[in-house]
This record gives sequence, C-alpha cells and structure tokens, in this order.
Amino acid sequence: MTSSQTIADAPTVACCAPGVQPIGDEHAADLARVFKALGDPARVKLFSLIIASESGEMCVCDLTDPVGLSQPTVSHHMKLLVDAGLVTREQRGRWAYYAPTPGPLLAAVRHLAKQ
Amino acid sequence: MTSSQTIADAPTVACCAPGVQPIGDEHAADLARVFKALGDPARVKLFSLIIASESGEMCVCDLTDPVGLSQPTVSHHMKLLVDAGLVTREQRGRWAYYAPTPGPLLAAVRHLAKQ
Repeated sequence: MTSSQTIADAPTVACCAPGVQPIGDEHAADLARVFKALGDPARVKLFSLIIASESGEMCVCDLTDPVGLSQPTVSHHMKLLVDAGLVTREQRGRWAYYAPTPGPLLAAVRHLAKQ
Repeated sequence: MTSSQTIADAPTVACCAPGVQPIGDEHAADLARVFKALGDPARVKLFSLIIASESGEMCVCDLTDPVGLSQPTVSHHMKLLVDAGLVTREQRGRWAYYAPTPGPLLAAVRHLAKQ
C-alpha cells in the first residue's frame, strides 16, 4: 500500500478534536452500578445514615423510622447498596447490621474526576 | 403527667442505637439526581471522555464514535448530564460543545463520604 492510498482511506471529515478512547465496557458498567445504587433519594438517605453512625454500623431496625419506609422496602434498598459494595451486611440474631464501605464510591469519583 | 406515665408511654423495645436524622427530602433528591445521571454505562463513558479532554470541552461530533451510539442517543444522554449539572452545553454553529463541571459530583460525595 502506498502513502497516497493510506491518505485516501482516511476519513475525509474531521470536524473537531482527535478521537479519545472511553473507558472500557466492563469498567463503565462497574462505575455505573455504584452510581446507580445511590441514584435514589431513599438510598441516599440510608447510606448517609449509616455513614454518619457513630458506632460505624446501623441495625436495620434503626433505619426504617428515619426514612419512613417499611423494613422489607428498606431491606430491598439495602441489598442494592450491598451489591454495589457501598455497605456490608452482617446478620446478628434477628437483626441485620450494615457498615459503610465508601471505597468504591470514592474510587469511582477519583477515576472520573481525577480527584 | 407523672414520671411513671412517661416511662409507660416510651417504646418498650429499643433494640439498638438511638435514632439519627437523615438528610432532608429535597437534598436527598438533589444528590440522587447527580448519582442517577451517572448510573448508566454510556453516560459514565461520555462523562469520562469529556472530563479527559485536553481542550476542556468536547464536540458532540467527537462523542458518537467512541461510545458507538447515534447522535440523538448521545444528545439524550448528554441532556441528563447537563440537567444534573455535571456538564455545560454550548451551541456553536452546527455543533454542541460540552465542558465538564464535576462540582456537584464532588460536593455530593464529600457530603456523603465526609471526604
């Protein structure tokens, strides 16, 4: 192939900046899952309660009243936060206890916003 | 009311920690909107491309190819990022240009994760 052929094969319109590669599909999905878990006001409240807890954890029995939701609904929201890696869950007798693990959120933001 | 009545009126079961107040409804909704905007892999990619742009902005014409989506689809995703305050949009002739404004994301995370 000659250089003239190479030039002829190149795109004829380049309006703006040179192409930049986005992050990969799998990584983008991982980051989106973390953000999506917090993309709901109830889960923002639940996460904020747990992360603000002085003891470093909260019983599900203490989460229902502040957010005004039933325990099954709270447990559903908490499962999404657990699945996203934003909290851990430990069952002790009758109650589940949740502790915050904000690492994935901080890592996601650091990756995106270069912080 | 006597002190014995006060005690009788108190909840008979207090399993765990004292109650903590969550953040308000409006603030929780604001934070959730920011996170929800990034709760999609395509929008994560688009935001990462714009924030990584050396010129500080990107033309919509340069966003379609890297994410493999049509311009109307990219524009839809970009509107959600604009509405969440994560990018600004400027029309110049035929093309829209987007610049990153990660402030709301950083503020949301700072509020939640005390960073």
